[in-house]
Amino acid sequence: MNYEKIQGLLDSRGYKELKEEMEKYYPVDIAALLEEVDEKEMLILFRLLAKEEAAETFTYMNSDMRETLIDALTDSELEEVMDEMYLDDTVDVLEEMPANVVERLLLATDEDTRKQINTILQYPEDSAGSVMNVDYVGLRPDMTVADAILKIRQVGINKETIYTLYITEKRKLLGVVDIKDLLTSGEGRTMEEIMDTNILYAHTTDDQEDVAKTIKKYGLVAIPIVDHESCMVGIVTVDDAMLVLQDETTEDISIMAGVSPNEESYFGTSVFQHAKNRSTWLMFLMLSATLTGMVLGHYEAQILALPVLNTFIPMLTGTGGNCGSQSSTLIIRGLAVGEVRFKDAFRVIFKEVRVALLVGAFLAVVNGVRILIMYHDRDPLPLAVALGITLMGTILMAKTVGCTLPLIAKKCGLDPAIMAAPLITTLVDTGTTIIYFQVAMLIFPQLRNL
Amino acid sequence: MNYEKIQGLLDSRGYKELKEEMEKYYPVDIAALLEEVDEKEMLILFRLLAKEEAAETFTYMNSDMRETLIDALTDSELEEVMDEMYLDDTVDVLEEMPANVVERLLLATDEDTRKQINTILQYPEDSAGSVMNVDYVGLRPDMTVADAILKIRQVGINKETIYTLYITEKRKLLGVVDIKDLLTSGEGRTMEEIMDTNILYAHTTDDQEDVAKTIKKYGLVAIPIVDHESCMVGIVTVDDAMLVLQDETTEDISIMAGVSPNEESYFGTSVFQHAKNRSTWLMFLMLSATLTGMVLGHYEAQILALPVLNTFIPMLTGTGGNCGSQSSTLIIRGLAVGEVRFKDAFRVIFKEVRVALLVGAFLAVVNGVRILIMYHDRDPLPLAVALGITLMGTILMAKTVGCTLPLIAKKCGLDPAIMAAPLITTLVDTGTTIIYFQVAMLIFPQLRNL
Repeated sequence: MNYEKIQGLLDSRGYKELKEEMEKYYPVDIAALLEEVDEKEMLILFRLLAKEEAAETFTYMNSDMRETLIDALTDSELEEVMDEMYLDDTVDVLEEMPANVVERLLLATDEDTRKQINTILQYPEDSAGSVMNVDYVGLRPDMTVADAILKIRQVGINKETIYTLYITEKRKLLGVVDIKDLLTSGEGRTMEEIMDTNILYAHTTDDQEDVAKTIKKYGLVAIPIVDHESCMVGIVTVDDAMLVLQDETTEDISIMAGVSPNEESYFGTSVFQHAKNRSTWLMFLMLSATLTGMVLGHYEAQILALPVLNTFIPMLTGTGGNCGSQSSTLIIRGLAVGEVRFKDAFRVIFKEVRVALLVGAFLAVVNGVRILIMYHDRDPLPLAVALGITLMGTILMAKTVGCTLPLIAKKCGLDPAIMAAPLITTLVDTGTTIIYFQVAMLIFPQLRNL
Repeated sequence: MNYEKIQGLLDSRGYKELKEEMEKYYPVDIAALLEEVDEKEMLILFRLLAKEEAAETFTYMNSDMRETLIDALTDSELEEVMDEMYLDDTVDVLEEMPANVVERLLLATDEDTRKQINTILQYPEDSAGSVMNVDYVGLRPDMTVADAILKIRQVGINKETIYTLYITEKRKLLGVVDIKDLLTSGEGRTMEEIMDTNILYAHTTDDQEDVAKTIKKYGLVAIPIVDHESCMVGIVTVDDAMLVLQDETTEDISIMAGVSPNEESYFGTSVFQHAKNRSTWLMFLMLSATLTGMVLGHYEAQILALPVLNTFIPMLTGTGGNCGSQSSTLIIRGLAVGEVRFKDAFRVIFKEVRVALLVGAFLAVVNGVRILIMYHDRDPLPLAVALGITLMGTILMAKTVGCTLPLIAKKCGLDPAIMAAPLITTLVDTGTTIIYFQVAMLIFPQLRNL
């Protein structure tokens, strides 16, 4: 996209050329462009768009821009935009707008659409019903291939997708026909003969993430959505599924970093909201870390007797925390993409224990060599041994805790993502400190009975 | 899927019923089922599948199962499976097999396919060329709608998708026609008239992740792939794009946890490989943590003079690490989904500084109250103040470092994901320790000049 050219044309009021230039771009890119220019220019550019492009561009804008635009457009302009939008996008827009804007938008739609909008708005947030599209091609089972093609010719232009055709009778879903099967079947064959009755579908109240995962798993372009009476009410398409999956992954990643997720983007979230999203976990973890502090306090006499012990604590707790969060992260992701299930718990733990032994032995040796070199002037062997045993013990504990907690969370119906680095690190810190001083007291007799 | 019923039918040798039962399931589910049964039963079930289902099930199997199967199948059975597979899937299978198996598989394909396979195998790993499909519908610009429908009737059955049709002349891509536009246009109109010349496409050598992101951004079902001479050679479809995005996200999440990613699943990776993937970063971080240990050693006199100071270190470094990784995680994810760009660096830092001030003030107060209560018997105010100032300073530093490093990595062409929790935590530990003791020496005069 050539921003400079567009800015130049805006400045020189070359509107005819500007219109031609805009035709080269996709709505999602035009929405990004409109974010870069000032309010007056945004309006000029928006009005230069063809009706269909304008409506689609509108769906890609952020809520602030939409509000500005709605304020500036005339009623008839607004009506044109609303007419061209698909119902699921209209609902998305409405959900974000303040009440007075919603009222104006609803006035710009016809009676029939308004009814459909109200139905969709009633589905729970994050449900399949709330993201579905009602513009699909429904066909009767007794229609022939020729009838079906004729029907698509008539109604297809207003449907978001015609890739899959849905065969219904009294609104009950009987089967699906892929457009490829329609076009490659004999003209006289009926839908009933060529349809696939082995249908994958979802309910309006199903979680949108599960529906998106089904679409991904089976490589679908759309999935039919039925209501509680098994009547077909809409479809969820693969492009919406991709966005749902992206949002859910972002949510998981946020939770794994100890940030309460919210729907807005990074810049769309206010400083105050960011602080609020991050403070809850930080406070909880800060207070939990006090426990490690108390454990350290308990071994004060040992530290005073052999102060060098203290200098290895960051290395030990750091390694323990990293080992634990490696394991928890792999298991959390494995659960999310379905590669790991709760019934695999023992296989997971057995695997992590073996990995821990290998990693522990390796790090114990590397660290031992370092100690023998750096502390060669003051009998380094006992220190190297104490640290080696502690590393082995810590890593074994960290990996076991790290892989077990997400599995337990999953079993308890909690989000495994909360069992990630921040929590694991805090838990492992306390364990590491205890292991360390107990091992040290074994190796250094002068630390006992202090 | 009814595992018990299938096991029962296997035991009672009810093969006819078993065949009918299997017809109800999708290939991806059948592949999962075959993983659960023993080798002999797997072969029985596989042979009961219809040709097309068998081929598709084969593409969903893991490499061990495929090898077992290839060993057991006769040459003519293998040929049938290979015939039914789409070329991109065949290539995927070949890439994972040992040389002797590849040879046998290639013998089971015809000359023409073998040539195409060799071309695809030459594209770099992770490139668009390596995941593309060569079975698309290409049409000439002078064809009418009626001609095009006739052509689809003839060739469509062998193409993976007919949702988008590609208009080419001497293999150069001129435009695309959506099947919807084809079916809703007059029969006499030519492809040239109805095609969209504003084409989104990618090159064979483009990174598969970028191609998948383009598919997601523009909501495409497929994107045409052209070679270095701008000739169309294949398409990448949305179902493949979803898998690419999932794998790339898993890779990012692994890197963020300090694990070198590999292509295999959690269980598909050997214990030794797991240990290897995790040891590199652990060793680096363990040695880096020595720096914090040295800093602690530097303040040994202060710790000996006021041992209670030592007990707050886990809380301070823990909070610093968590704050830093919150920021780095949000920025890494923002960069990955395109919500944050390098040119936003100053906006990001300004935002993080304000968030840090709010979060810091809040935690300083919470911790202050705790200190005033828990240490009420020994003049807690100076301690509360010292910890409060340290928390503010630490959080400010952690959030600044946490948001800056991923942006710098991006600018330098490195993967921002390496600037995640493990590295940030280690860096912030050292900084926190220095801030803490410097503040303590300011507040407690007895700690100076020791």
